[in-house]
Amino acid sequence: MSTERLWPHPELAADLSALRRKAPLVHCITNLVADNFTANALLAVGASPAMVVAEEEAGGFAALAQALLLNVGTVTPPDARAMHAAAAAARAAGRPWVLDPVGAGALPYRTRVVAELLEHRPAVIRGNASEILAVAGEAAGGKGVDSTAGSAEALPRARELATRLGAVVAVSGAVDFVTDGEEVFSVPGGNPLITRVTAVGCALGAVIAAFLAAAPSPLRAAVAGSALFKLAAGRAGRTARGPGSLATAFLDQLFLAGVEKD
Amino acid sequence: MSTERLWPHPELAADLSALRRKAPLVHCITNLVADNFTANALLAVGASPAMVVAEEEAGGFAALAQALLLNVGTVTPPDARAMHAAAAAARAAGRPWVLDPVGAGALPYRTRVVAELLEHRPAVIRGNASEILAVAGEAAGGKGVDSTAGSAEALPRARELATRLGAVVAVSGAVDFVTDGEEVFSVPGGNPLITRVTAVGCALGAVIAAFLAAAPSPLRAAVAGSALFKLAAGRAGRTARGPGSLATAFLDQLFLAGVEKD
Amino acid sequence: MSTERLWPHPELAADLSALRRKAPLVHCITNLVADNFTANALLAVGASPAMVVAEEEAGGFAALAQALLLNVGTVTPPDARAMHAAAAAARAAGRPWVLDPVGAGALPYRTRVVAELLEHRPAVIRGNASEILAVAGEAAGGKGVDSTAGSAEALPRARELATRLGAVVAVSGAVDFVTDGEEVFSVPGGNPLITRVTAVGCALGAVIAAFLAAAPSPLRAAVAGSALFKLAAGRAGRTARGPGSLATAFLDQLFLAGVEKD
Repeated sequence: MSTERLWPHPELAADLSALRRKAPLVHCITNLVADNFTANALLAVGASPAMVVAEEEAGGFAALAQALLLNVGTVTPPDARAMHAAAAAARAAGRPWVLDPVGAGALPYRTRVVAELLEHRPAVIRGNASEILAVAGEAAGGKGVDSTAGSAEALPRARELATRLGAVVAVSGAVDFVTDGEEVFSVPGGNPLITRVTAVGCALGAVIAAFLAAAPSPLRAAVAGSALFKLAAGRAGRTARGPGSLATAFLDQLFLAGVEKD
Repeated sequence: MSTERLWPHPELAADLSALRRKAPLVHCITNLVADNFTANALLAVGASPAMVVAEEEAGGFAALAQALLLNVGTVTPPDARAMHAAAAAARAAGRPWVLDPVGAGALPYRTRVVAELLEHRPAVIRGNASEILAVAGEAAGGKGVDSTAGSAEALPRARELATRLGAVVAVSGAVDFVTDGEEVFSVPGGNPLITRVTAVGCALGAVIAAFLAAAPSPLRAAVAGSALFKLAAGRAGRTARGPGSLATAFLDQLFLAGVEKD
Repeated sequence: MSTERLWPHPELAADLSALRRKAPLVHCITNLVADNFTANALLAVGASPAMVVAEEEAGGFAALAQALLLNVGTVTPPDARAMHAAAAAARAAGRPWVLDPVGAGALPYRTRVVAELLEHRPAVIRGNASEILAVAGEAAGGKGVDSTAGSAEALPRARELATRLGAVVAVSGAVDFVTDGEEVFSVPGGNPLITRVTAVGCALGAVIAAFLAAAPSPLRAAVAGSALFKLAAGRAGRTARGPGSLATAFLDQLFLAGVEKD
């Protein structure tokens, strides 16, 4: 059965140093709400973001970039074609990529787009419990883009999904769970107010993509990204008065992590 | 004629509590400048935003969501088709929705889109004076998306428009006016510097949509949204050094309203 | 040869006052990452932004606006058609405009779009060294949207490009260089951490467009925009803890420049 482990702090420090040394170019096709915050989160951790979204460019660019994130939060048919081209190119180049199935389950069109993108074999799937349950084939009743299920509830199906797809599945929630189907890491911490800042989960998908270019395995990458976000949210919460100042402090703390003492 | 009244603080508190209890799912199709700030404003007040913009999804999702905002700030033909599907679905479901006619009057294409959307009978129309005058059929000479007219100037035509459409009309400005054609509420306060933060008016349209799902009437919803924004802008102005810190503090104050003492 | 000069502070103050008096309406077709930050930067300096992106509206609106910025950061074919309409209308109206060739060189589709837009004769081209080298026809090996070359390296080709096109070329970097082919201004200062805030360069292109409507020449406009951004970044750096608070303070300082004492 599962040996559930807490995230290992020394490994996060090593992976974060590797990310900053490598400064990977992260190709993102993400949603309209998340574009700016995701780029800022990637810059804050030390990666180099590039939102290259046109069908004419997505395949060629995915072959050049060190990492790829696809997020279906506001996907339209032209976006879906660009995502297919990017995912196919990343796979052909042997480069692991991250799929964020925002709103899967609640919305049939994107649920179909997500099912098609799975054929390009993402290395990591990151979502909230409702989204992961939906990708796992369960009628999950997500409420738009917010989850109606807790992350622990989704864990058994997340493990099955990971095993079936040969992928790492990261379930975000009050506690994040990351699994490759065998091992399970739980990542507690953070700050409940962070759910009042939009696009944090979306930005996490992109930062996990950045870690894929630097960490020794997709499992380590997904754990490192999740742990870094919990760490930064927790620290940012010490000074924030509300969600506006929390978002600002969160980006500061992504930058300061591993630089300032705990 | 008009019995112009100030916004009633105790009613705002009641409506805000109701909004937070209900945490309505607010479907937004808004503009590229406003997507992120609008989502953050909705989260800060206690609603659940979902920017669902594809034609393939907009109708189905509008039928599920508790509220709908349509904002034509950067509308393109695919967006317009999605907006029609969403407005039609909201109307069919008997659910009130908000129209924000950004830039109407100054720009012929969107002026036509707005005219078509009016056929789906919005419960609330929110805009600046130039936009409201344009929707009312007057050549208003808006300067792009900023108003060249004061909100009081637009009030007579706003009342006529409200009566003609059976809708509430909210005119934003140094003082906001909200009318159903008979009653007129004036909402003073705020902070003049807030005009140097982009997308605040756009976010107000979305927050009024959230109040539509919680307040006893569209008139109350539009007054509550306008009053909450003036309150938050006024409080945020006490600590802000410029428009950057004002935007951050404004989101904090949307969250803190009704939580902290005045 | 080049008489390289530092940016002249008194002239910046004069141009900034003129910009604020005129409050120019700046038409922007920019990228999905930059839309919000660019609008906020324009509002902070005292201009009036309008992101009018539909092909149906771009030409007509460019003829009305006082300034135009085109930025190809996430350009798609419909965007490119809107950009052509806008650039043609601006040229027909005798109004100078700014081209920001984000990612040119690294990505063939947008490189072609940029080449086509050059036929509409921008008054100012603003980019990082890799982008300017690419526009000048040199295989530059840009890394996505970040530069792999220093701004000084690009200066000789920037001067040739400026002379050939009859345009001002602004090369952003640790030191900005602005040239019309004959004169060269170097603009030092700023804060290295600003490279960890997304869309600052994109916003600079828009602010240069605003200065085009107020300054006595395109050269002065490009120098004024670059100098204002270096000034604001330097001042913002005094209080920022990381890139989140730097972005916020940067917008504050754009607003405060010329208002508070140095």
